[in-house]
Amino acid sequence: MDNPKINFFLPLLYLAWSDDLLTQKEFTVLQAFIHTQNWLSEAEKIDLLSKIDIASPPSRMELSQWKSAIDQKVLREHKSIFDISSAFYKNDSGDFELQFLKLENDLGILGAEAFGIFRPKTDTFTSKYQTEVRFDVQKLTAILDGQQAPIINKVKAIISRQEFQYETSTDIDVYRGKVYDWCKILADENLGNMAYPKKYGGGENIADYFAVMETLSYHDLSLVIKFGVQFGLWGMSIFSLGTEKHYAKYLKDVGSLQLPGCFAMTETHHGSNVKGLETTATYNHSNQTFTIHTPNPDAQKEYIGNAAMHGQMATVFAKLIIDGTDYGVNAFIVPLRDENMKTLRGITIGDCGQKTGLNGVDNGTIRFDNVSIPKENMLDRFASVNDNGEFESLIPSDNRRFFTMLGTLVGGRIGIPRSALAAAKSGLTIAIRYADQRRQFGPEGGSEVPILNYRMHQRRLLPLLAKSFAVHFGLQYLTQRYINKKDNEAQEIEALAAGMKSYATWHVRDTLQECREACGGKGYLSENRIGSLKNDTEIYTTFEGDNTVLMQLVAKNRLSEFRKQFGEMNALGIINYVFESAKTSISEKNPIATRRTDEIHLLSSEFHHEAFVYREKTILASAAKRLKSLIDSGLDSYDSFNVAQHQMLDVAQAYLERVVLEQFQLEVKNTDDLQCKAVLEKLHNLYALTQIEKNKGWFLEDGYMEAPKTKAIRKLVSQLCWDLRPDAVALTDAFAIPESCLAAPIAVRQL
Amino acid sequence: MDNPKINFFLPLLYLAWSDDLLTQKEFTVLQAFIHTQNWLSEAEKIDLLSKIDIASPPSRMELSQWKSAIDQKVLREHKSIFDISSAFYKNDSGDFELQFLKLENDLGILGAEAFGIFRPKTDTFTSKYQTEVRFDVQKLTAILDGQQAPIINKVKAIISRQEFQYETSTDIDVYRGKVYDWCKILADENLGNMAYPKKYGGGENIADYFAVMETLSYHDLSLVIKFGVQFGLWGMSIFSLGTEKHYAKYLKDVGSLQLPGCFAMTETHHGSNVKGLETTATYNHSNQTFTIHTPNPDAQKEYIGNAAMHGQMATVFAKLIIDGTDYGVNAFIVPLRDENMKTLRGITIGDCGQKTGLNGVDNGTIRFDNVSIPKENMLDRFASVNDNGEFESLIPSDNRRFFTMLGTLVGGRIGIPRSALAAAKSGLTIAIRYADQRRQFGPEGGSEVPILNYRMHQRRLLPLLAKSFAVHFGLQYLTQRYINKKDNEAQEIEALAAGMKSYATWHVRDTLQECREACGGKGYLSENRIGSLKNDTEIYTTFEGDNTVLMQLVAKNRLSEFRKQFGEMNALGIINYVFESAKTSISEKNPIATRRTDEIHLLSSEFHHEAFVYREKTILASAAKRLKSLIDSGLDSYDSFNVAQHQMLDVAQAYLERVVLEQFQLEVKNTDDLQCKAVLEKLHNLYALTQIEKNKGWFLEDGYMEAPKTKAIRKLVSQLCWDLRPDAVALTDAFAIPESCLAAPIAVRQL
Repeated sequence: MDNPKINFFLPLLYLAWSDDLLTQKEFTVLQAFIHTQNWLSEAEKIDLLSKIDIASPPSRMELSQWKSAIDQKVLREHKSIFDISSAFYKNDSGDFELQFLKLENDLGILGAEAFGIFRPKTDTFTSKYQTEVRFDVQKLTAILDGQQAPIINKVKAIISRQEFQYETSTDIDVYRGKVYDWCKILADENLGNMAYPKKYGGGENIADYFAVMETLSYHDLSLVIKFGVQFGLWGMSIFSLGTEKHYAKYLKDVGSLQLPGCFAMTETHHGSNVKGLETTATYNHSNQTFTIHTPNPDAQKEYIGNAAMHGQMATVFAKLIIDGTDYGVNAFIVPLRDENMKTLRGITIGDCGQKTGLNGVDNGTIRFDNVSIPKENMLDRFASVNDNGEFESLIPSDNRRFFTMLGTLVGGRIGIPRSALAAAKSGLTIAIRYADQRRQFGPEGGSEVPILNYRMHQRRLLPLLAKSFAVHFGLQYLTQRYINKKDNEAQEIEALAAGMKSYATWHVRDTLQECREACGGKGYLSENRIGSLKNDTEIYTTFEGDNTVLMQLVAKNRLSEFRKQFGEMNALGIINYVFESAKTSISEKNPIATRRTDEIHLLSSEFHHEAFVYREKTILASAAKRLKSLIDSGLDSYDSFNVAQHQMLDVAQAYLERVVLEQFQLEVKNTDDLQCKAVLEKLHNLYALTQIEKNKGWFLEDGYMEAPKTKAIRKLVSQLCWDLRPDAVALTDAFAIPESCLAAPIAVRQL
Repeated sequence: MDNPKINFFLPLLYLAWSDDLLTQKEFTVLQAFIHTQNWLSEAEKIDLLSKIDIASPPSRMELSQWKSAIDQKVLREHKSIFDISSAFYKNDSGDFELQFLKLENDLGILGAEAFGIFRPKTDTFTSKYQTEVRFDVQKLTAILDGQQAPIINKVKAIISRQEFQYETSTDIDVYRGKVYDWCKILADENLGNMAYPKKYGGGENIADYFAVMETLSYHDLSLVIKFGVQFGLWGMSIFSLGTEKHYAKYLKDVGSLQLPGCFAMTETHHGSNVKGLETTATYNHSNQTFTIHTPNPDAQKEYIGNAAMHGQMATVFAKLIIDGTDYGVNAFIVPLRDENMKTLRGITIGDCGQKTGLNGVDNGTIRFDNVSIPKENMLDRFASVNDNGEFESLIPSDNRRFFTMLGTLVGGRIGIPRSALAAAKSGLTIAIRYADQRRQFGPEGGSEVPILNYRMHQRRLLPLLAKSFAVHFGLQYLTQRYINKKDNEAQEIEALAAGMKSYATWHVRDTLQECREACGGKGYLSENRIGSLKNDTEIYTTFEGDNTVLMQLVAKNRLSEFRKQFGEMNALGIINYVFESAKTSISEKNPIATRRTDEIHLLSSEFHHEAFVYREKTILASAAKRLKSLIDSGLDSYDSFNVAQHQMLDVAQAYLERVVLEQFQLEVKNTDDLQCKAVLEKLHNLYALTQIEKNKGWFLEDGYMEAPKTKAIRKLVSQLCWDLRPDAVALTDAFAIPESCLAAPIAVRQL
């Protein structure tokens, strides 16, 4: 340890033995190098070679001593291993430094990287990064809650009570019982009847009803669904499809949970295609009754919430038959159990049993064996049987009438995505708090670093956080449109609701999946709730309509709107015209924009909006053109839609993204508080650019963007994630989820 | 109904009232049109207008009569609504047909599509498509099973026995007990000790051991993990890290499940970064013992399988301390419970409780309060304490020694992805059989169609099926490489295992998610098993190493290999050179290829391979260049890797995709049976093109492909899905999963 020439090699020797990447072959390389060094004496060479004999490694102690010796020589101005070696012994011969670099390279050592092992420790900027509060969290909460803040706070106060402590029993009966009891408390607080007319004891406030659904979703999701089945599906089916006599008879008891009931639409063989329901309601002229009947086992009602345990009645959807003529699907109130909860004659109820989630909801099957109900049990707002036993309706088409009926039930497609999004907010709050506190790995010799400081972790969580804000504003917009809808907007809003339900629930699925993984093993423990949040919302992509099927409905609506917009032109020429004009107008407008990569442009809301609109229009026109050419080529329209199904989904997706973007932009614009505005703007930019990045294949294919631009966008997305990282915890704080509801031990703040 | 001029309008009137898309505004359009028709008398106009009075709709009966009248007029040669109308009354005036088309358009009616409602019904090609058997299923099974067929069949026979009926209790103790009993049966069948040396009662057959893990995964996944913890982690840690004396003392009892044990590595605060473990093993010279101690609550062992109920001993990873010096992490056998299952003094065991899945495994926490163990309990293959109480090891670096130890445990990263893939095969078998039998929607007036005939449903499931075959062959390759590894291949194979574990388990996650949704409500019922398959494998992306962390290890290995490959050049010039040469060589080679869209080219394995290799090389060189320039700019290497983290994942991803593709291509090439070869080739093409489609943004950005080509690939992917649809059921049959294991009612074949 005192020959400087030998010590010249210490850094290399240390690397050779300590680095876990060197192979036997590389030791040979090192030996060969030493042999060729003429400035070393034979004795020195032998000494050195003895230190790289793979059969006789240095002792661990020796290795520690080398490291100490090196540490004493390293200076702040050193830039390479060669610099350190030269601090032991200076070899000035001509190409020696180059030879040395070649050796390093042959050993697979990346100079500057390996050098880091010896560099005096300073904090890296990655390790210094941390959470800050750069805006007023309460102000942001106020923006999110809007006018519903009072009811939201009321519900939060209720679900924070001791009696709402989570049920941890895995016994399904215990859990179902607890959920029922919770529902009763909520009914007693007048939350269940929130949407019903005041005349029947209700709150007559639909906006508040949705806010209740959403806020309850910070708590147990079985509770939300049980609540939604009772007060939404069962109660609102009476309100939407029935008439005064039904309201008077039932609504008060439904709203107080005196009369638990079901919404019995889906059958085993008919879920998405409810038009094909097979249950029959046959009119009996003799005694003015209907006979409700399940004609075959696959026509049983299935997945019916409240059926397995608590339901006393159900709104049953069945084909109305009068004198052998089928008048299409109508709705009837059918008693299931008596007041002692004994199942009535002709009714057979099954239990769906254990499910992936929502096990606090008693889903069941219902079969009817010639069950007789009085005539007044037909929910007769849209169709009725008159005193002569004749069918009457203002809507002559069975098809149209049925879809009009379904249209009145569209509220479910608002409550569900809002509930889902609340679950995603819980997941993000838990995962982001954990990522802010959990430390793992760090710079060589430094302390460990919060995992939220890692770029990939930011990339995994922050775009989902941004999108959650986007979807929040999108759902607020949907709610407002629904509440204030005019007659001629019904179809547009139904399509919007179907689309937003799909868009939001898919987002929630992806978010909770990512949150689980981002929390590692902790995310797998039930106590941290991410698993149940995921499992409970898992079915949200299916119920109120399978997302993929709904997206096709949305696309069909868009295509039909598209045709109407261009109604003044000759039909044959329209599609080509629109298609071509969209293309040319854009490329005329933006000759340079396809390549612009400056931040001012890439962060401008005009650029985002134009890109989203362009994409939406082009995809729509292209799908219309494709369908037309398929049908013109003689294909059946059913086959044609099937061939273009993939494109149909794109049509709907592009439409929804544009709608959501616009709402986010509007929200940023309307925000007065400068700090909130600033952070919302960043979130908006991240949402917008993440979607563009996701769709970059399309934009490049289309020519709307070129490679330098999409590359710049990728970089900017990473940068925005980095910039937002200090705000992440505060942003989830703005969701203001009650701590007792979050409950996850990993989400407990360490002060 | 007898004035032909009036009847001319019947098809339009029918559409107006039956179509559920017309709005009030559109009725006005129709009224205006009628007013302008001079060929109608005033009386006729009044009659017609009365039929489109929104306040007085036709009766449902009337609507039916219109439809019957129309149906009688429609002829096979009719092509439009105008044709049908003209069959009632012919109006020859000049531009009348054009006026009519304009009207249709104003009403938002897409001519040919609306016409479909009246067209005489013929089966559409979508509805006629169905399952066929076009290859010998057993031959394909033989290809998948390879040389392990005998052990696979043995295991299948065992898990098909009555005693392996699934446990449905939600009581965690019952479930854990059942899983233990199953393990005992497997041990009695000599499956547990399969990998151990014959000398200690084992089968000395690692290939068979992995096949056992894989095949068991068709049954309950808690069983697989419990089995893996006992015989793999616990047993193999003794075998890999211990020496003869440990083998003799423990292996037989471990293999027979006489001695249940744990693998206690992970701590609450150290999961991914196991180098930072804090548990200590302090050597006591006086009595030649080690004191195992948990220095703080967050250093407790966590998630340890077999700990909460059944484990009697554990391999504990702890920092070895001798005379105050820390010699890095080593492994020690520590007794936990006595033969009466009483926890020993100084040991505190906690229960991880309910988890998202795998509730049949008793994961727990372990804390050590100065627990004394004899010196011989140190697993001393790589390091030991000699009789003088001095540390001895052939590997001087603590770091390197630890990673060498970890390297011997890499088998877990082979067993886990193979187990996961088996779960995905179960999910796909269930979802594809269901999709083949479940009918929903259909052509107007026709019967409903299997949902697997829908393009989107094919798109959702078939690429995942293709990728499952690809991953299967990739994992076979990994297994072979592992079993036949040479010393200098260790690092490459460790990286391959880490990568394949991530690649496979992410694929499984995506697959089971899609299967759940593809089965709708049925997929949510526990009886159909998709939920538990998903939940049980959910943690596979975390255990044996978090996927995201592992992918970075893979990338670092690739970067280091990359540097070594070009070792003969001057270090400074290499990266730029490689980067540029890769670019130019490709563009020189393929001046036209960037635009080729013919099927011969797009379906050629040469094209696929070149594209995958090009992508891998370019991404690797680009990441190397980026890192170099970040480090050269003065950034700490830790910061640099963080900045480039996103690219690191791409490096690993591109590498794994290329490896998997190559194995799939080799398998196709080596298949003799022509029918099997044909279907494997189609699956291979679907795998290859789906990955290219997924990465099309990158290929377009890079310029390796241009838009016409990526568009042609998208079309071809849809076409391949369609082509493979008839084979889908047979392809899942080739997995040959025992029916009693599949168990899902929706997967029962309807004969």
